Amino acid sequence: MTMSFDHITLGQRVLFGVGQARKHVAGEVARRGAGRVMVIASPREHELAEGVCAQISVRVWFDDVVQHVPVGKAEAARAVAGEHGVDLIVSVGGGSTVGLAKAVALTTGIPIVAVPTTYAGSEATNVWGMTENRTKTTGVDDRVLPATVVYDATLTTSLPVDLSVASGLNSLAHCVDSLWAPRADPINQALALEGARALARALPGIVADPDDLQAREQALYGCYLAAVAFASAGSGLHHKICHVLGGTFDLPHAETHAIVLRYVLALNAPAVPELAGRLATALGSAMGSEHTAADALNRLYEALDAPRRLADYGLTERLIPEAVARVLEVAPPSNPIPVTRANLTTLLSDARTGVTPTAGLHIVR
Amino acid sequence: MTMSFDHITLGQRVLFGVGQARKHVAGEVARRGAGRVMVIASPREHELAEGVCAQISVRVWFDDVVQHVPVGKAEAARAVAGEHGVDLIVSVGGGSTVGLAKAVALTTGIPIVAVPTTYAGSEATNVWGMTENRTKTTGVDDRVLPATVVYDATLTTSLPVDLSVASGLNSLAHCVDSLWAPRADPINQALALEGARALARALPGIVADPDDLQAREQALYGCYLAAVAFASAGSGLHHKICHVLGGTFDLPHAETHAIVLRYVLALNAPAVPELAGRLATALGSAMGSEHTAADALNRLYEALDAPRRLADYGLTERLIPEAVARVLEVAPPSNPIPVTRANLTTLLSDARTGVTPTAGLHIVR
Repeated sequence: MTMSFDHITLGQRVLFGVGQARKHVAGEVARRGAGRVMVIASPREHELAEGVCAQISVRVWFDDVVQHVPVGKAEAARAVAGEHGVDLIVSVGGGSTVGLAKAVALTTGIPIVAVPTTYAGSEATNVWGMTENRTKTTGVDDRVLPATVVYDATLTTSLPVDLSVASGLNSLAHCVDSLWAPRADPINQALALEGARALARALPGIVADPDDLQAREQALYGCYLAAVAFASAGSGLHHKICHVLGGTFDLPHAETHAIVLRYVLALNAPAVPELAGRLATALGSAMGSEHTAADALNRLYEALDAPRRLADYGLTERLIPEAVARVLEVAPPSNPIPVTRANLTTLLSDARTGVTPTAGLHIVR
Repeated sequence: MTMSFDHITLGQRVLFGVGQARKHVAGEVARRGAGRVMVIASPREHELAEGVCAQISVRVWFDDVVQHVPVGKAEAARAVAGEHGVDLIVSVGGGSTVGLAKAVALTTGIPIVAVPTTYAGSEATNVWGMTENRTKTTGVDDRVLPATVVYDATLTTSLPVDLSVASGLNSLAHCVDSLWAPRADPINQALALEGARALARALPGIVADPDDLQAREQALYGCYLAAVAFASAGSGLHHKICHVLGGTFDLPHAETHAIVLRYVLALNAPAVPELAGRLATALGSAMGSEHTAADALNRLYEALDAPRRLADYGLTERLIPEAVARVLEVAPPSNPIPVTRANLTTLLSDARTGVTPTAGLHIVR
């Protein structure tokens, strides 16, 4: 079979270095000849941001960071940027912080140097989002893609272990779902598999020792690639299911993603044996023995004591038919296994009770 | 060990589709609202280019394409572009053709849509080159990176099998050398391994059937990734050795690259067992049994009947000491195994006689 795809690679500089954020930020400011820098960081992260910006001259600080980027906050930040003739934004923080920086860049074109302190991944995409009257608007614009991302695992060590695992499994779901999402192509598949490899080795390391900088860095790296792959490939079946479970039945985001992932993989793996084999290799590279992708994921979940039953988070048997009906409406035609009422019902029932999924194929040698 | 790297991803749109070049080029011209297109194609490829451009309005054709982009030709092409107010260049051809388009873009900023007809890879890099008085000048400038690349394997079926294999092995050498080149990082390593995977399955397919479009497309895809990875990672030991053998002793380019690759891999593999294992998996994914990277490469060379002895191409025993001395001066400090007079002498002696290299480690499970 020949290929047919349209892949857009987003141009971005990415710097990795443990303990190097200060130096890397100063280097970027100098290289760009920026003279009027605005730093965006929430009050909670002000001290961290001061450290990161210790070697640059900051024209103005902006700290009114709120979840989901309310339009009013974006306008306030734009006004401050305008008043001060800001020529570079340095954002230090998680998704909400870089989200605000993106909102400023969207209308002003001011370049962003993003310094992530969580595994959000937004720093690697050209997607922006803002809310007004409790309605979220999102869009895609290359101007909001941070020009440079400075990753430094020392900035993430205060992320609690449980949040790190939840966030990491969410990224792993991005990687796995990217393998068969509507715009999946061999390039974003290769990046997704590399991201899965990094996450599978990172997460058990963080659980074993939350201060393990190597594990923290692998998690950052894996989440970065997950964001790149997912932004390129789009939402596959996994994300459609989780969207319904969260949106209609109010199941918790992180746990739902973690639980559903294994069952979507088990459903699809037999139809994409080569990709599943490569995923098994990626997930297993830290484990060292033969297994299927499903086995590798099961083992990872045991190591992480990850959530495994939707019943624990509010999905009752009675709700399954409605959930199935809603997912059927949005299931991507690109899914390797055609989605039916029957296989979706089985999938959600199994995910509800937490029966161990066993499908999947052996690794490619 | 933590990571420390600076990775620049170049932003570019890449379209793949067998038989789709005409449609994809027209789509790009429309999407960009280009009204005054200059097509660059050599007379030999004029007919091919006419087919590719059948659905667009061409303002001016430029066909004075010469190897190595002489400055005079670049100036002539720039003058034509200026006279006609050209707002988009479509290049249809190999390295010299896109090279000329890049020379025009360098001074004018006119965007390029590149339609490759060979496995040159230049379309995926921001590197330009021009020659004047027999001296080649090269440089790096983001303006010369084609905005879009349209890959269509039907345009490459006239490439002779031997040239396809030579060109493909040259790209494979780019992939392998990228694993340990001076600016190697996990991102360009992942792309290089994906490129190697595609090339290892493509080349035997082309040898078996030169009209196999699936194999031709995999080769294009592999060469594209090889170019991306190599441009990012830089020249490793393999390329330094080949540069000396070609530059000082006038050994032929393609054969030298093909022969030297196996010995550099055999030297370095034991020092980078994980990467070598992943390379073995990548090279072997089309082959299906357990092996080391060196074994997989040996088997590929047998299948391709690839050149295996430098003695056949002019390297005498007497020349080895001088070659070793020259390589020692330029050997990258990043090489996983420190390069010494002793191990280089062994490497070149083995490559001269064609003894089968056996080092390398088993695949990662």
